[in-house]
Amino acid sequence: MRLAIIGAGAVGRSVLALAGEHGHDVVAVADSKTAAVDDDGVDADAVLDRKSARGRVGGGDPQDALDAEYDALVEVTPTTLGDAEPGFGHVAHALERDRDVVLANKGPVAERYGDLRALEAESDGRVRFEATVAGAIPVLGTINDYGRENVTAAKGILNGTANFVLSRMAAEGLDYEHVLAEAQDLGVAEADPTFDVDGTDAALKCVILANVLADGERTYALEDASVEGIRSIPPSALSLAGEDGRTVRLVGEATADGARVGPRLVPDDGALSVSGTRNVVQLETEHAGSLQLGGRGAGGDETASAVLADVRRLQG
Amino acid sequence: MRLAIIGAGAVGRSVLALAGEHGHDVVAVADSKTAAVDDDGVDADAVLDRKSARGRVGGGDPQDALDAEYDALVEVTPTTLGDAEPGFGHVAHALERDRDVVLANKGPVAERYGDLRALEAESDGRVRFEATVAGAIPVLGTINDYGRENVTAAKGILNGTANFVLSRMAAEGLDYEHVLAEAQDLGVAEADPTFDVDGTDAALKCVILANVLADGERTYALEDASVEGIRSIPPSALSLAGEDGRTVRLVGEATADGARVGPRLVPDDGALSVSGTRNVVQLETEHAGSLQLGGRGAGGDETASAVLADVRRLQG
Repeated sequence: MRLAIIGAGAVGRSVLALAGEHGHDVVAVADSKTAAVDDDGVDADAVLDRKSARGRVGGGDPQDALDAEYDALVEVTPTTLGDAEPGFGHVAHALERDRDVVLANKGPVAERYGDLRALEAESDGRVRFEATVAGAIPVLGTINDYGRENVTAAKGILNGTANFVLSRMAAEGLDYEHVLAEAQDLGVAEADPTFDVDGTDAALKCVILANVLADGERTYALEDASVEGIRSIPPSALSLAGEDGRTVRLVGEATADGARVGPRLVPDDGALSVSGTRNVVQLETEHAGSLQLGGRGAGGDETASAVLADVRRLQG
Repeated sequence: MRLAIIGAGAVGRSVLALAGEHGHDVVAVADSKTAAVDDDGVDADAVLDRKSARGRVGGGDPQDALDAEYDALVEVTPTTLGDAEPGFGHVAHALERDRDVVLANKGPVAERYGDLRALEAESDGRVRFEATVAGAIPVLGTINDYGRENVTAAKGILNGTANFVLSRMAAEGLDYEHVLAEAQDLGVAEADPTFDVDGTDAALKCVILANVLADGERTYALEDASVEGIRSIPPSALSLAGEDGRTVRLVGEATADGARVGPRLVPDDGALSVSGTRNVVQLETEHAGSLQLGGRGAGGDETASAVLADVRRLQG
């Protein structure tokens, strides 16, 4: 397929680097200020070198990329809350042109699901967003295949940073501030870890899952979710849990009735007690018991793999 | 879609019972001696009652079901080795009629993959077989989405009976014969457990995975696989492993270069140390690390769910 990639952060650059292997042509790439557009396919290596050396993907205007001759728009700009702009506008523009859209940006799917589905209903284009939930892990594809009406609940470890911090606190008996500083040194936590440790990132993923499970009958946004983070968990809580064969994890849950995220006690040998930055999602099904899906929940190549899996599904 | 179900064992009956919920019409059902055919859709409850009360699905000839006006043939007769008949013939007949085929029967995919793909290439019909590998777990769908060229290896616990026996032997320090008898009492092991405990069932699944990963460049059959079962594992081996933080599991492995199954030492806290009858499959990917997919690997409703997921994918 012919792809336009809007956003040139880690995910956008990985999609650009990997698209050729998957048999796609990237006809446009945009960062926030510039664009490279070529109907015959941009030179991925040249664009990546330019971005790395000069901080821009090309000499064109970002709008040129939105107006390019692509089959699918890949929207991988940073997640924004509220009106989810500018990502939502990019998606709307592509749908109005009857083009397919693949998102890694959680904003439009978490904050404006109803608006998104309404635009999709008016368009010949289709919207896919596997990469918005748990990176490389095929959660939404599995829900789609089994039929959302056959999936009663989704529950999981959806934020690698928070899980890393809790794993280390439990394993080493260290306090939150100490482990967070360590995680920042390792590059596992960002300089401002608010979104991760306060549960916002996991909540956005749960809201997306709730929107999918409710299938438009009801729609949810972040403000509808019950969210509690991990900042106030004392090491003593983790050691008490450990004595009882359990541990504390930041668990996200979604059903057609809504989403919630908070610290929960989970058994040491259970599916949700993954260590480090891995993610895991447990789907409860009507007829096939529970399914566990685990893997890397973040990372440029991992998220790009989910984007390209969506493109492959659109291709049929 | 309009389905014809060939085979009225646990899986066939579950597909019949669940098809309506998924929006499909079952226009034909056959067991080994009889058939029920109705272009407007058979009465699922009546067929299930008749099968249960009188041991047959209807008054027609099984060939009538093969010739019925379906969109997809669901082949769920028992797995046979070698020529994989009569399953292979059913599949060939459907493909010659340009109809889609969904298999839960491992025989045609494990033993005659090249023949199957050659017939598919000549047909407008497509062949899907998610249910042949690890029941409800979406292994083949995930490989498809990520692109088989991006999956370098698959490894997993693919036989619930063998895993139950090994789990119990390790947990209770009991010998193989004792635990097997217990498993037979519980209905977890069949009266003749040869296929499960000798590794044949797991090997067939690995051969299918190897065929998928090799994508027709090479094809494999059961005789090409290296297979070792669990009969000769002494309880002492399990307790020795346990002292070292490990346990023994019957592990199946597949790459584009072939398939093998045998008892392996795995870490107690690793992805492959699942307990009881659960299955787990670990996919190694080029760009997205490893993915773990776990769930119920057998059972009528579980396998039927995988069949119906394939039908949903065919529907697009």
